[in-house]
Amino acid sequence: MSARIVTAAVIIIGNEILSGRTQDTNLRDIALTLGRCGINIIEARVVPDIEERIVAAVNELRLRHDYVLTTGGIGPTHDDITAACIAKAFGVELVEHPVIAAMIRSREAAPNVMAARLRMALVPRGAGLIENDAGSPPGFFIGNVHVLAGIPHVMRAMLAALERKLVGGAVTQSRSVVAYIGESAIAEPLGNLQAQQRSVDIGSYPFVRDGRIGTSLVVRGTDPVLLDEVVAHIEQMLLAAGVQPTRE
Amino acid sequence: MSARIVTAAVIIIGNEILSGRTQDTNLRDIALTLGRCGINIIEARVVPDIEERIVAAVNELRLRHDYVLTTGGIGPTHDDITAACIAKAFGVELVEHPVIAAMIRSREAAPNVMAARLRMALVPRGAGLIENDAGSPPGFFIGNVHVLAGIPHVMRAMLAALERKLVGGAVTQSRSVVAYIGESAIAEPLGNLQAQQRSVDIGSYPFVRDGRIGTSLVVRGTDPVLLDEVVAHIEQMLLAAGVQPTRE
Repeated sequence: MSARIVTAAVIIIGNEILSGRTQDTNLRDIALTLGRCGINIIEARVVPDIEERIVAAVNELRLRHDYVLTTGGIGPTHDDITAACIAKAFGVELVEHPVIAAMIRSREAAPNVMAARLRMALVPRGAGLIENDAGSPPGFFIGNVHVLAGIPHVMRAMLAALERKLVGGAVTQSRSVVAYIGESAIAEPLGNLQAQQRSVDIGSYPFVRDGRIGTSLVVRGTDPVLLDEVVAHIEQMLLAAGVQPTRE
Repeated sequence: MSARIVTAAVIIIGNEILSGRTQDTNLRDIALTLGRCGINIIEARVVPDIEERIVAAVNELRLRHDYVLTTGGIGPTHDDITAACIAKAFGVELVEHPVIAAMIRSREAAPNVMAARLRMALVPRGAGLIENDAGSPPGFFIGNVHVLAGIPHVMRAMLAALERKLVGGAVTQSRSVVAYIGESAIAEPLGNLQAQQRSVDIGSYPFVRDGRIGTSLVVRGTDPVLLDEVVAHIEQMLLAAGVQPTRE
């Protein structure tokens, strides 16, 4: 009865993330969206704008996961090398996609500007398109690799299109219980509970709010009945430890 | 005359980042801090709380880079497995560090709570400590692998201690020029400039501010005189394209 676990990896392409210039927010958006589709991200990598590093990451991860999503490097400038790298990873030519090219040519521009824009029409031979209602050219996919923009609002437009198409497995649900108690005060019974319940994943995340130490206990799994049972156990454990649990 | 390029990789450990529950901010803080030390992050990975994945990432990256930094998984609960994974990666025992243990024992607690807290004193045999003035136990290092907390304010305390110790190479500096122009309008001269100036890294990052399309051009390199020269070229290029450049 249990559905297959469907996995994905994310490759975030861009020197600006590794230098600290830009705070990535795409990974979280992708994780939340794929999660709703029943697709679990198992690993993510941030790689620089260097061809061999991108090709190596794509080829390693596409064999290991059901889906790979990349972000970044699909604009019109010299540092946008993602499409060429994906073509190289798959051993196919980089070709002009007629639909994207027609879209770009419909807006007039000086010849050198048009030439730059048309770089965004280059995709690996055989690639399909990922719709983008943000006004810029579409993303593309080849095999199980899906290539999205790096600019967050454009990435989200493409991700919304992907969400309508990708097929996942059982959806991992999550329940959170919060209490004002230090992690170590409940570490022992919590560890025992996790040892008994191997088909859920129990995470413990300490925090400080208004100067008070608390812990967020997050239970994740695909069986909602079991999740509720485990959460009830955790609530009893917290009450036994003398604190009031709150669901969040 | 050119100093050696010193590189680092970051391993972000935690299911909560991959599920989208938590937005990572540690990578950016680490990148900015290491950048000031002359250490360039070349890759980053987000890995789940699974022993074999953590061990594999540590062993792959520690051979390839001068430094590896990890974040997350060093608390007192069952899901905190980083120290055990690092010990396994190095093929050494996990042992109680007397300094951390004494620190933890100085605060009284019930026996089972104390036992949980003492998990935070376990380090790979031979590890040294990374100071932490945030009040919680210190981080540790073994070989070139530096193990930091995941909670941002604790991570930053450990990172500040690391900044005083890590030895880097030439510091990569950065200059930014911003103009209200689309990327494709300057893609051609910008690509030519990058082709001529191979020892700097020119990045082009489009943005929309108050509904206006703009581009941020970022020049990075270790020679400040050359950076200023390249920025001056970019400013001329933007003026020639009919827009006013602004340094940021």
